[in-house]
Amino acid sequence: MTTERTRVDAQKLTNFSAKTLQKLGMPENDAQIAARMLVATDLRGVESHGVARLNSHYARRLRAGTINVNPKPKIFSRSPATAIMDGDGGLGFIIGYKAMMEAINRAEKTGAGFVAVRNSNHFGASALYTMMALEYDMIGISMTNGGTTVVAPGSSKPALGTNPICVAIPADKKPPFVLDMATSVIAGGKLEIAQRAGVSIPEGWAIDKEGKATTDPAKADADRKSGDGGILPLGWTPKLGAYKGFGLSVLVEILCGVLSGSMATLAKEKRGNPEHFFGAIKIDGFLPVADFKKSMDKMIEAFEALPTLPGVKKIYVAGGYEDEVEKDRKANGIPLDSQVIEDLQKQAEDLGIEFDL
Amino acid sequence: MTTERTRVDAQKLTNFSAKTLQKLGMPENDAQIAARMLVATDLRGVESHGVARLNSHYARRLRAGTINVNPKPKIFSRSPATAIMDGDGGLGFIIGYKAMMEAINRAEKTGAGFVAVRNSNHFGASALYTMMALEYDMIGISMTNGGTTVVAPGSSKPALGTNPICVAIPADKKPPFVLDMATSVIAGGKLEIAQRAGVSIPEGWAIDKEGKATTDPAKADADRKSGDGGILPLGWTPKLGAYKGFGLSVLVEILCGVLSGSMATLAKEKRGNPEHFFGAIKIDGFLPVADFKKSMDKMIEAFEALPTLPGVKKIYVAGGYEDEVEKDRKANGIPLDSQVIEDLQKQAEDLGIEFDL
Repeated sequence: MTTERTRVDAQKLTNFSAKTLQKLGMPENDAQIAARMLVATDLRGVESHGVARLNSHYARRLRAGTINVNPKPKIFSRSPATAIMDGDGGLGFIIGYKAMMEAINRAEKTGAGFVAVRNSNHFGASALYTMMALEYDMIGISMTNGGTTVVAPGSSKPALGTNPICVAIPADKKPPFVLDMATSVIAGGKLEIAQRAGVSIPEGWAIDKEGKATTDPAKADADRKSGDGGILPLGWTPKLGAYKGFGLSVLVEILCGVLSGSMATLAKEKRGNPEHFFGAIKIDGFLPVADFKKSMDKMIEAFEALPTLPGVKKIYVAGGYEDEVEKDRKANGIPLDSQVIEDLQKQAEDLGIEFDL
Repeated sequence: MTTERTRVDAQKLTNFSAKTLQKLGMPENDAQIAARMLVATDLRGVESHGVARLNSHYARRLRAGTINVNPKPKIFSRSPATAIMDGDGGLGFIIGYKAMMEAINRAEKTGAGFVAVRNSNHFGASALYTMMALEYDMIGISMTNGGTTVVAPGSSKPALGTNPICVAIPADKKPPFVLDMATSVIAGGKLEIAQRAGVSIPEGWAIDKEGKATTDPAKADADRKSGDGGILPLGWTPKLGAYKGFGLSVLVEILCGVLSGSMATLAKEKRGNPEHFFGAIKIDGFLPVADFKKSMDKMIEAFEALPTLPGVKKIYVAGGYEDEVEKDRKANGIPLDSQVIEDLQKQAEDLGIEFDL
């Protein structure tokens, strides 16, 4: 698959995205926040969750009214470190941003803050929220549930979302540790990508309706959509640790679905909005931040100095590769497929805003 | 491998273990705590970490003075929700118990509590500590690092411990959710068990010094001990998610090694004691406990009601199987190998205490 790609300046892309969202009815401040988050996703190379989805996913739902353009989220708190947020059906970026800020503010006072969120929408890449904590010298945590694409070990009925867990932790001169992982073997988009490219998938990604491993992404996807077959939990088989991936995924359902006062996806009477969970832990509550960050650097350098197997250039600690991508894209612009650019241009015409990318 | 097994009463086994530890110089209260924890491990079927290790592992080290029999752990706190504990080189069970109680007490006041621990020793099964939180209607978290048996993706040098993550969450009538997982494909003991049984291991558990998958547990173990080869991170290969297992393992090194003011194992100048991390989050800080527990039951029932593939009797949510084992063993006693019983009897004679199992 080769597609033509053009480098677009990140600031221009942010301004354009913000104008788009404002035109769709979002308040200026919210539109700015959401635009920065979409572009931040592209800057780190997670293109499946960036501006490519602005039109196809978010704008469409804002237009259709299935996402509330001007939500008034409510906070319910029963202890200094903890709270529930009702997201009022708003755009996940805005609700997630506000909930994470709430967790950070609580951690600033007590050392730790946690916010479980219900009644939100798709919040994009999990790392957006955990990385907010880095500026405050905190450890950031985020999770989200949503949908049923992943099977439990021993069953072929899709029962869980890909339920990502993300943790970000600051370092000094080295890039921050940013672990952003689906608790399934693969993120949901990978079946789609394989189908579009017309390639088979490795054994261990998905099972069909007979519960057998399939290497055909179209069959995996069709069976899943029919309610029998799906993506496998991290680990693949029970002997190789599938119960661990499954357990982590259920943990996400509990912290997001149950703790927010909503319900785990599988037990919902009707399929509803996703829930999220955010956490912030203040490093200075344990030890001086400068000491911690120096130790982080020392640890990361030790992993990077490991001898590598033939064909392996470098050992990356989580977040290290994305940091290299981000530095390049900040300096040289974000590469966008010609199809994405056309899509954004058409959208600009429809909305009557200037297209200046 | 068939061995003769005798069922031993849990209370008798606790009393015997406590007497043993007291005779070795531990204060009565500490000996009681450690004995209860050893036996609690056997009750849940995690025999690799129970009384079978009392003599071979813990007693030997207490005798040799490499574990401090009467530690005075110190707490350093810089925020209401967070603290570091210096374990004064004590037995991991005692240090872990005290650190987890510190986290619970902080969570009682602020809604969340976290304690990073340095200068401790092997603390047994991680679930011992997380399950303490259940009685307080809290979510319990525990992690520990230690040793180098696991490789990073792309390297064959052992760089990490099996670094378990454990989370326990209460339900109402259903068993609590207890996820207790090594972040490697397997726990360390599984290579030993396969060697003793003379069986091969599945591809995906370990690599040899050439970086190739091996099915020979003796070769895997020998290569690892020579410093080249080891257990694989959860996920097995990069395509199947090995970066996730690796990332989770590094997360454990950070929260245990770095945040406690010690150092990640790989970056230590000389191999030292393991570090731990404990957390408690108060459910009532989010919503009424009774509502939460009812939702937990509903979720667990939904997973248990999933249709099963041929040959699968039941879908267990994490902790469900161990709960069944615990109920049986509480009622009918703990099955111990004749070899373990002989070992305990010999130990009783050596120490001059009554053997009444």
